[in-house]
Amino acid sequence: MMVVQYNGAHFFGWQKQNGKRTVQGELEQVFSKVTKQNCEVVGSGRTDRGVHAIGQVATVDIDSTIPLKNLKLAVNNMLSGDVLVKSMKVVSGDFNPRFAAKRKTYRYVVGTGKRDAFKDEFITYYTYKVDLEKMQNAAKLLVGRHNFKAFCSADTEVSDFVREIYSIDIKKVGQNIIFEITGNGFLYNMVRIIVGTLLQIDRIGEENIKLALENGDRALVGKTMPPNGLYLKKVEYK
Amino acid sequence: MMVVQYNGAHFFGWQKQNGKRTVQGELEQVFSKVTKQNCEVVGSGRTDRGVHAIGQVATVDIDSTIPLKNLKLAVNNMLSGDVLVKSMKVVSGDFNPRFAAKRKTYRYVVGTGKRDAFKDEFITYYTYKVDLEKMQNAAKLLVGRHNFKAFCSADTEVSDFVREIYSIDIKKVGQNIIFEITGNGFLYNMVRIIVGTLLQIDRIGEENIKLALENGDRALVGKTMPPNGLYLKKVEYK
Repeated sequence: MMVVQYNGAHFFGWQKQNGKRTVQGELEQVFSKVTKQNCEVVGSGRTDRGVHAIGQVATVDIDSTIPLKNLKLAVNNMLSGDVLVKSMKVVSGDFNPRFAAKRKTYRYVVGTGKRDAFKDEFITYYTYKVDLEKMQNAAKLLVGRHNFKAFCSADTEVSDFVREIYSIDIKKVGQNIIFEITGNGFLYNMVRIIVGTLLQIDRIGEENIKLALENGDRALVGKTMPPNGLYLKKVEYK
Repeated sequence: MMVVQYNGAHFFGWQKQNGKRTVQGELEQVFSKVTKQNCEVVGSGRTDRGVHAIGQVATVDIDSTIPLKNLKLAVNNMLSGDVLVKSMKVVSGDFNPRFAAKRKTYRYVVGTGKRDAFKDEFITYYTYKVDLEKMQNAAKLLVGRHNFKAFCSADTEVSDFVREIYSIDIKKVGQNIIFEITGNGFLYNMVRIIVGTLLQIDRIGEENIKLALENGDRALVGKTMPPNGLYLKKVEYK
């Protein structure tokens, strides 16, 4: 099991695709080269094109006597610097990083200051007025166990839209607003829609959020924010 | 005249090239679209593929009554966020940003801490031991007016290798070592070779730097550092 950090702006997402640079694909290639085995890498879940990870969790099943420290060094030396294995440990063969995940935390970074060409991949700039306290109050409506169908892109194969959000923290750090959302699992684009809704709370209003949680109407809530502000921060297991 | 910031990792350098994404090419396209004129952008000098700019200076000759503030806004809205015009002012038609430049300052950022996938485009990591004081002392040998042939890539069309360096500042900020070099002009790869030489001062020794400044022997000094730690910070005019 390993914790993986990557700059999603350089990849066509996590999931392997023919002829495209993906995180899973690149990790499999490098592990296969280093161990001289055919390696399959399994992630805790996909991230979309442009979405970053601070702490994606993945497993790879290898038959090797290389000490983990050396394996990590060899893999990181062969990986290009925009994806890195931060830590590694041995887990039992039946551990599945997707099904065993208990909590996930996502971070979303919104820039309200001057645009910066060096931060373009890492921050979504937002030029409208935002009210931190209003957002924090509205966020409380989303915490708990709800049907989040209204906060899910239509483009999904899921049929059970019930998820539990444990916390939504919103704080201002310098000129950035940082959202951190922890839950037992997230629907397709759910974090990006929640952030888009909270940023526009003035226009949308708390009543529409309550209604959307009841009737699942996607049209009641905010737009999907772009991927470049989004980070999979942490995946927790029992 | 404008000050331009860009993430060089996303461009094939400053200079226009057919079919490749370059900073000059992209600025010309956007200015031409916004002003509906055929715009030529002239820079203070080229930067190579992967090299960033905090303060590149360039001019564009346009016949327009759009207020500068609005022009800047329109251009930045059309540019992708990894290149931005930071400021604009009107200069006389005979101002040439290349020939009029009096001083240039480059920054080079070397990382000595843990590698970070989000910093990979912006820092060159260096894993060997470095001695800040030894580097600062050796740097003094380079300050002043010298023949810098030894600190220039063979791949150059220049025949006059005399340049003046006004200052070399080296400081540690967190886990990074930041070099700032100001001079009246720089040869091809000169900053990258100076940084490579200073980092390896233990192996190279001050005597070889003195000798290289006398005999111009490239083999006496250090290797060319990669582009991703290099920033054109500032171009100064009279």
